[in-house]
Amino acid sequence: MNYADRLEAAVRDKQSACLVGLDPHLALLPDEFAVARDTSAPRAERAAAVEDFLCQVIEIVAPYTPIVKPQSAFFEVLGADGVRAWENVCAAAHGAGLLVLGDVKRGDIGSTASAYASAFLEGDAGTDPATLCDAVTVNPWLGSDSIQPFLDACERTDKGLYVLVRTSNPSSGEFQDSSDPPMMDRVADAVSEWGSQLMGASGFSSVGAVVGATHPEELIRLRERMPTTPLLIPGYGAQGAGAAEVLPAFTSGLSGAIVNSSRGILFAKSDLPWKDATLAAIQQMQAAFGSGLVTRH
Amino acid sequence: MNYADRLEAAVRDKQSACLVGLDPHLALLPDEFAVARDTSAPRAERAAAVEDFLCQVIEIVAPYTPIVKPQSAFFEVLGADGVRAWENVCAAAHGAGLLVLGDVKRGDIGSTASAYASAFLEGDAGTDPATLCDAVTVNPWLGSDSIQPFLDACERTDKGLYVLVRTSNPSSGEFQDSSDPPMMDRVADAVSEWGSQLMGASGFSSVGAVVGATHPEELIRLRERMPTTPLLIPGYGAQGAGAAEVLPAFTSGLSGAIVNSSRGILFAKSDLPWKDATLAAIQQMQAAFGSGLVTRH
Repeated sequence: MNYADRLEAAVRDKQSACLVGLDPHLALLPDEFAVARDTSAPRAERAAAVEDFLCQVIEIVAPYTPIVKPQSAFFEVLGADGVRAWENVCAAAHGAGLLVLGDVKRGDIGSTASAYASAFLEGDAGTDPATLCDAVTVNPWLGSDSIQPFLDACERTDKGLYVLVRTSNPSSGEFQDSSDPPMMDRVADAVSEWGSQLMGASGFSSVGAVVGATHPEELIRLRERMPTTPLLIPGYGAQGAGAAEVLPAFTSGLSGAIVNSSRGILFAKSDLPWKDATLAAIQQMQAAFGSGLVTRH
Repeated sequence: MNYADRLEAAVRDKQSACLVGLDPHLALLPDEFAVARDTSAPRAERAAAVEDFLCQVIEIVAPYTPIVKPQSAFFEVLGADGVRAWENVCAAAHGAGLLVLGDVKRGDIGSTASAYASAFLEGDAGTDPATLCDAVTVNPWLGSDSIQPFLDACERTDKGLYVLVRTSNPSSGEFQDSSDPPMMDRVADAVSEWGSQLMGASGFSSVGAVVGATHPEELIRLRERMPTTPLLIPGYGAQGAGAAEVLPAFTSGLSGAIVNSSRGILFAKSDLPWKDATLAAIQQMQAAFGSGLVTRH
C-alpha cells in the first residue's frame, strides 16, 4: 500500500488528523531531562535524555495521533549522538504503531538527493527499516532533478514526500509570494505533476505539500490548486492559527490534511505535571481534528 | 578575524582558489575502502572506511587547497555512524590547517534554524570546536527569518554562509529563473543585504553565494549584482564547465571566489593508483585557479 493510502487508513483508524511534531528544544525539556542541556555531561547522556523524553511523549500521544514528525535539527544539535537518538525515536514511534514523517527539509542535486533519500526513506540491506521514515519534507528550490530521486525511492518503498510550498513563518513571502504569479503557485503545480507519478487508491498522491495555516486565504487557493495532494499544515497552535483557519485544508471528513502541533503538545503550558499537560493537549487537539472536525465540516 | 578575511588569507597563503568537495559516494570509493559499501558489515566499520579514505584525501590535497567541503548526505546515508565520521573528517581537515565548508543546504524557520546553526557553526560548551564548520551552505526558500539565526551565529563565531542563489543542476531554472525578474536576482539582492551585516576588512562579506559555473552569462551578471559577496562556484569539471567559464567569478587576482571540484579530485579518472590520480588532479586544478589565474585574469 502506498504512503497516501497508509496515511488515510491510519487517520481513519485513529479518527485523528493530528500530527505531533517532535521538536525537542533542549531549553524547554521538563526538569527531569535537564541533563540534555548540561554542556558538561557527555553528549551520549544528553542525547539519551532527549530520546527518553520523546519515547515517553510517543507513549502518551500514540492513541490520539496517526503520525509523528521528528525535527532533525534538534537531534543534529547533539551531533552523532543526537542522530543515534533520532534513529531510536523513529524506531520507538514505529513500535507504537505510528507513521513517522521526518522533518528534514533536504534539497540537493541528483546523486546527493539520492543519498538523502537513501538515508531517510530507503536505507540499504544493512539498515534497520524501523529507523527509517515513512515520509520526509523536502525543499523545492533546486527544481525537479532534486526531487526525482526522492520520487524514485518513494515508488520503490511506498514512502512519501511533503514539498515546502508555502511555509508558516513571517518572512516566507519574500520568495514564495514575491513574483506574479507567485512562485508558490508554480511550485504547487510542480507538486501536482510530481505527485501524478505516485497516486494511491484513496485518490491522493504520496507527494504532499506543506502549506502554512498562517495564510488562510492562500490555504484555500492552494487546496483547490492541488486537489489530490495531501497537505501538511504547520502554524496551528503556538504559531497562531486556530482550528477554523485549518478546516479548508480537508477535502472531505478527515481526508486530505494532517495538522501539526509541536510545542503545543510537547511543552503544553499548564500547571499540571508535564505528562498530564501533554495528554490533555493531544486529547484537545484530537477533539478538534477528529470526530469534531467531521461534524463541523 | 571574520570568515571572509580568514578565507581571503587562506587563498593567498595557498595561492589557490580551489575548494575540494568531499563527496564520498560509497559506490565510487577505491577498492581498499570497499567495506564502506558492504551492507553486511557493521555500519561503524563502513563509516570508518569512509573516514579513512577522506583523511587520506585531506593529506594529499592540503598543500594545494585552502578549504574543503564535506557533503553531508554521503555521511548521513550511514546514519549516526556516518555523522560521527563527518565530525572526525571536519576535525582532520582543521588539523591539516584547512577551512571547512559544510555542504548541508539547511533551511528552516526561527528556532529550528538556530538549532542547525548551533549544530554546524557554533556548538555549545560541550562541543569540540574542531568538529564544527567554518561556513555552511543554506537554502533561502523560507526567507530572511530562516537566515537570521545563521547570521547571528556567524557574527558571534566569525563563521560564514553560502546561500543557494543559482545552482548548477539542469532543472535549477524551474524556480530560480522562471519569473520576471528572475527569483535568483531577488535572492541575490537579499544576500547582499544579509551580507552587509558581516563585512570584513578584505572588502568581502562573510555571507557568500552559490552560483553555478554551468550558467556563464548569469555568473557574470550575478557577480556584478553582488560585488562584495564571496562566490562558491560548483559545476567545474565533472559537471561540464571549464576554467574560462569560471574566471568572471573572481573580482581581482584570486579574490572573490572559490571553485569546487568533488568527483574530479576524489575519483579522478586515471590509470594511476588513486592517490597519484588525486594528487595529479588537485595539482592541475591548483594550476588553473592559482598563479595561472592571476596571470590570465
